[in-house]
Amino acid sequence: MAGETAFHRDDRPVVALCGGIGGAKLALGLYHVMAPGRLTVIVNTGDDFEHLGLRISPDIDTVLYTLSGLADPVRGWGLAEESWAFMNALGRLGGETWFQLGDGDLATHIERTRRLGAGEPLSQIVEDFARSLGIAARILPMSDDRVRTMVDTDQGTLAFQDYFVRRQCQPRAKAVRYEGAEIAAALPAALEALADPELAAIIICPSNPYLSIDTILAIPALRRALEAARAPVIAVSPIVAGAAIKGPAAKLMAELGAEVSSAGIARYYGGLIDGFVLDAADADLALHVGCPTLVTNIIMETLADRRELARKCLAFAATGKCLDDR
Amino acid sequence: MAGETAFHRDDRPVVALCGGIGGAKLALGLYHVMAPGRLTVIVNTGDDFEHLGLRISPDIDTVLYTLSGLADPVRGWGLAEESWAFMNALGRLGGETWFQLGDGDLATHIERTRRLGAGEPLSQIVEDFARSLGIAARILPMSDDRVRTMVDTDQGTLAFQDYFVRRQCQPRAKAVRYEGAEIAAALPAALEALADPELAAIIICPSNPYLSIDTILAIPALRRALEAARAPVIAVSPIVAGAAIKGPAAKLMAELGAEVSSAGIARYYGGLIDGFVLDAADADLALHVGCPTLVTNIIMETLADRRELARKCLAFAATGKCLDDR
Repeated sequence: MAGETAFHRDDRPVVALCGGIGGAKLALGLYHVMAPGRLTVIVNTGDDFEHLGLRISPDIDTVLYTLSGLADPVRGWGLAEESWAFMNALGRLGGETWFQLGDGDLATHIERTRRLGAGEPLSQIVEDFARSLGIAARILPMSDDRVRTMVDTDQGTLAFQDYFVRRQCQPRAKAVRYEGAEIAAALPAALEALADPELAAIIICPSNPYLSIDTILAIPALRRALEAARAPVIAVSPIVAGAAIKGPAAKLMAELGAEVSSAGIARYYGGLIDGFVLDAADADLALHVGCPTLVTNIIMETLADRRELARKCLAFAATGKCLDDR
Repeated sequence: MAGETAFHRDDRPVVALCGGIGGAKLALGLYHVMAPGRLTVIVNTGDDFEHLGLRISPDIDTVLYTLSGLADPVRGWGLAEESWAFMNALGRLGGETWFQLGDGDLATHIERTRRLGAGEPLSQIVEDFARSLGIAARILPMSDDRVRTMVDTDQGTLAFQDYFVRRQCQPRAKAVRYEGAEIAAALPAALEALADPELAAIIICPSNPYLSIDTILAIPALRRALEAARAPVIAVSPIVAGAAIKGPAAKLMAELGAEVSSAGIARYYGGLIDGFVLDAADADLALHVGCPTLVTNIIMETLADRRELARKCLAFAATGKCLDDR
């Protein structure tokens, strides 16, 4: 939707698109300020990979753990009060230890792998996990088909976790590709959620556009659904003052030749968004964004910050007008 | 070997056959009193099963953990100072929790499953694990092929772990079968170890004959190798005063119509053994055994008990004569 105003009522549904840690913070804020059952989170699965014979879905799990209140508040990923006996024992046996898997976290991977092996779709497994963890929101993988985020680098083409975790983003990125996205079927429930005429807003969380959001949008039906949605699409910048709030966004963007700024992110999303949320530190960039902006504090340190930003995003979506909320 | 005496020197190799907890105690004693690298333990894998998508080898792991000094001294299975975050988290997700898997123990199962999936034989994996854990003995699965111990009961045919752990041996057993044993290839290294002309003794550890030792002997080449071995074969009773030292041997034996006594065990092994070790409490049964006997304390509570029984078994094998060591 563009140019139209919509009034946000508390009980109208909202869809959020997100990747991992940064995006999940805003998803948690939305979850807290909305009525139970009205939030749908469409999550990137391009980072999913097989490790030690297990299917790992890092972003899905970050959202599950964050919304259930089980996430580690310091690391942002994994479970709070996690223990590491498995990793220690694996190292003792000569196994691969570059990807940290906590003892409690392993249950998620083992049970998911078992159920996938039994032929169940990922979406059903995630739905059951969310219910088991008491989450009153819908968490949807973008697709039940495999999409693999690959990074072309000066050291060859790397699978995402190889680039991101094992090599800590050190190789110089040349391009990011989403293998399988073109032929992946968008999750039907995600398409339905985006097409819901009651939808109050579609929030693109402050995740890395190249590594999280574009992976979702690379599935043709999901991009079309976002373009066709009647609800306002609001993106929140993952960049503040030219630096990524979290993760490798800035380094990667610079290597890909993109402008590392909030305005650059907004232009990257282009005609897809109806509003853009950027930090007070970037207020002077608001004029260069090309759509209505909300200028506010977007760094979410506390739960109160997450709720506050969520509330402001929903209010912004409802007005459709520029707001300066510094 | 029968009727021949052999003199045990400390540096001559010994082969032990064993199942899990009870048998591993004597294997540990042998390991401690022998020169490094001279002990070979052939381990039952009929209890192996797939659980949560993981390949579990309970007896192999008990021997690995026991000989490396990592075993929990109270439970007898699993790792000392184990934590259970995985099981708790699995329960929270609605997974199956009837088989306890500790956090550190999981590394063994996950790494084994990964390597089996990559096409490596179990024996190679166990050899590497033993080396990683610093074990100076050879631990050999009886076969790299699958053999499955099945228990025919009044509640139908049950896989061993289903009978043993999930149903806690409650169903009434009618027969025990070793599926796949007839066509399983004995591990070549096990056959070589049994045929070694230098071998000082073959010790059948005090494991349940029906559920552990017979599984090994059900592989035709292994039974033949034991029958053909020049070294004396010494079995240690798992029964003391009509009761199993550990595990469900007594209940199962009674249900199968066997005589629940040390003498019954000895007769069950029959012509296969050259000597039988029974507890002082069963001294009056020694005359009914049908082969030379060693009467001594066979209940191993401490490490000193394990070493002591191991020493006595080796000395007994060397003399080939009845001994009363009460």
